[in-house]
Amino acid sequence: MYAPPNFDELIERRGTHSAKWDMMEPIYGVPADGGIAMWVADMDFRPPACIQAALEGMTAHGIYGYFGDDRAYVEAIRWWMLNRHGWEVAPASIFTTHGLVNGTALCVDAFTAPGDGVVLMTPVYHAFARVVRSAGRRVVECPLAREDGRYVLDIAGWDALMTGRERMLILCSPHNPGGRVWTPAELREIAAFCQRHDLILVSDEIHHDLVMPGQKHSVMPIAAPEIADRLVMMTAATKTFNIAGAHIGNVIIADEGLRLRFRKRMDALGISPNSFGMAMVTATYSPDGAAWVDALATYLDGNRKLFDASLNAIPGVRSMPLESTYLAWVDFSGTGMEPGEFTARVEKEARIAVNHGPSFGAGGESFLRFNLATQRSVVAEAVQRLERAFADLQ
Amino acid sequence: MYAPPNFDELIERRGTHSAKWDMMEPIYGVPADGGIAMWVADMDFRPPACIQAALEGMTAHGIYGYFGDDRAYVEAIRWWMLNRHGWEVAPASIFTTHGLVNGTALCVDAFTAPGDGVVLMTPVYHAFARVVRSAGRRVVECPLAREDGRYVLDIAGWDALMTGRERMLILCSPHNPGGRVWTPAELREIAAFCQRHDLILVSDEIHHDLVMPGQKHSVMPIAAPEIADRLVMMTAATKTFNIAGAHIGNVIIADEGLRLRFRKRMDALGISPNSFGMAMVTATYSPDGAAWVDALATYLDGNRKLFDASLNAIPGVRSMPLESTYLAWVDFSGTGMEPGEFTARVEKEARIAVNHGPSFGAGGESFLRFNLATQRSVVAEAVQRLERAFADLQ
Ligand SMILES: Cc1ncc(COP(=O)(O)O)c(C=O)c1O
Ligand SMILES: Cc1ncc(COP(=O)(O)O)c(C=O)c1O
Repeated sequence: MYAPPNFDELIERRGTHSAKWDMMEPIYGVPADGGIAMWVADMDFRPPACIQAALEGMTAHGIYGYFGDDRAYVEAIRWWMLNRHGWEVAPASIFTTHGLVNGTALCVDAFTAPGDGVVLMTPVYHAFARVVRSAGRRVVECPLAREDGRYVLDIAGWDALMTGRERMLILCSPHNPGGRVWTPAELREIAAFCQRHDLILVSDEIHHDLVMPGQKHSVMPIAAPEIADRLVMMTAATKTFNIAGAHIGNVIIADEGLRLRFRKRMDALGISPNSFGMAMVTATYSPDGAAWVDALATYLDGNRKLFDASLNAIPGVRSMPLESTYLAWVDFSGTGMEPGEFTARVEKEARIAVNHGPSFGAGGESFLRFNLATQRSVVAEAVQRLERAFADLQ
Repeated sequence: MYAPPNFDELIERRGTHSAKWDMMEPIYGVPADGGIAMWVADMDFRPPACIQAALEGMTAHGIYGYFGDDRAYVEAIRWWMLNRHGWEVAPASIFTTHGLVNGTALCVDAFTAPGDGVVLMTPVYHAFARVVRSAGRRVVECPLAREDGRYVLDIAGWDALMTGRERMLILCSPHNPGGRVWTPAELREIAAFCQRHDLILVSDEIHHDLVMPGQKHSVMPIAAPEIADRLVMMTAATKTFNIAGAHIGNVIIADEGLRLRFRKRMDALGISPNSFGMAMVTATYSPDGAAWVDALATYLDGNRKLFDASLNAIPGVRSMPLESTYLAWVDFSGTGMEPGEFTARVEKEARIAVNHGPSFGAGGESFLRFNLATQRSVVAEAVQRLERAFADLQ
């Protein structure tokens, strides 16, 4: 029977090998004792009961050998994409990687060569640039524009930046940070841009289930079917259901030629998924998982309303209106403070660990990213601390 | 309190997403109903209680976010290598990969270029050649010689095969298949061979804990410290403790230059370990894990004695004496039968799924590999079926 989740329950994560809670002191100097972890993108909630049941089934059996028979897993993915996103996925198009940083990296490896340009719409999820640079490819930053305080495309500006030596664009859809749910029209503009400049489009849709009530995400193959021959989709259950520790994700490729090139690199790099991730994904891409994520979206919407109301009341501080994700992107430029100053107030006075804007690339300089996927009471405590830390501006 | 394991307990693995049991029918045509799975290298035993406790601790907590704080994990690895192998490992030398097929693949990727030769001492674990070929490198087969029915080196013969275009040797130590525990003298000969031909030596020691009572494994850095500048070690807890589904392993590199090159590829490929594997390894590289593997070795020794006594009594059939691993390597050449004939008798008459010899490379043509890591009663049933299937030879 489906039991509604209680997202208000406080769960102690310190001392549980949680990157978010146990590494905030070594990385940000925010004390474990009394600090609040609002950085790396996982949630302080337990995943749906169907995931817990799948793991308990595994531990009750108690043998953890090589995984075999992925038919139920593949069917679960197909069910989810069809029922939640209206997208029909062919079984043969699905690859399983060790999460989507690995998935992104494998795309860069399979479809570009050293020295090639890889286009990022910045500011954007920091691991994209990290992977591209580590692989000896060039990051080509296409800055997002701002309109009514939200990010929008600047296709004309980006056209002017292209040199012919770019091979790939990595899209974050919905966008992290900033939380834009790109409209079908915007997605088609991006698709046309990729056609015009002969770019492979890698669409990282890891946040596509986490949209705020009233918002509607469009998956790229539905929005722009005309670019199937250059499209690589990336999806995962890990953000949606808070199972990032399982390190599992999907790269989904409709085009046969791209698929062959990708498979060759998967084989050459010996990539095979772990059985815990396989079991969790199979269990959660289900009606029970769907009910849970609907409840989650409503809860996260409440969190961001609380957060935004308070933060936007601080003179000079602006939190972008989130259409998706639980990652609030807060602009401190209106305070006139240097980044060192507002960051110190957040980390040292409010004792909150957050992601620093510059790590997301050009345009992030005056921003901090706050992870709101925690109990409402923790968000409330955080906003009180932030109000105090910036009280002199009132 | 440490409870001695009961390896005799029968555990139903069919229908549990076990590659070994659930894929033997699609792959080998051996029926799930009534067949015996003796192929892929995992065991039909539960791992030590400390692993089970670690997983139950995780499920009791119930949040599966990003893993952080690997200090206990690194210390557990160092403790194990020092206490079980007399080998001092520097924390900075330890990389964690998605198992050792992935580890091997990353070594090939990091340290060789397309077209380079990679030396394998064949017959040897089949994934080596698969990865090397998928990566567009050349497999250079150096055939093992046989002496008293065991594999031995043929360094002079191999010297003659080298062309100067080989860059790496992948060693399997102990050896799979055939089960040799290479002596320190043999390891030094291999090391000198690598020096002479300027090869990076990747020593896959995934089986190094699974040695038969009375045998003593030597890790390569102790046997041949003089090749530290060209040595890459690979170790894992997954074979030892039957947790292959966790897909986790270690590449351990003492040399700074090799380490930098390897790290660069790890970063570029976005490799980060899953939290289940991290927790299991941390728990089991411990005194409790050690007591368990000692008990296991004695049990496996009993299995292979039962198996060998029966198989070697069939005229023309010879099972190599295992010094290590639970993988019996059985030569049917003395029967005068074609591979198709003895394989059909094993698969269709005895209904046993086994690995086919040719997949291990040159020298494997007349062999089948039997996985003996199962309950004694299952081994007994298997040998009875094999005796019947070859009864006409008596
Ligand atoms: C856009 C995006 N892609 C990928 C990831 C990480 O994916 P994984 O944990 O599967 O490597 C994140 C995590 O925050 C993300 O925001
Ligand atoms: C020598 C050797 N290396 C590696 C592996 C597989 O390693 P993993 O499961 O960590 O990829 C095996 C499995 O049988 C093996 O025998």
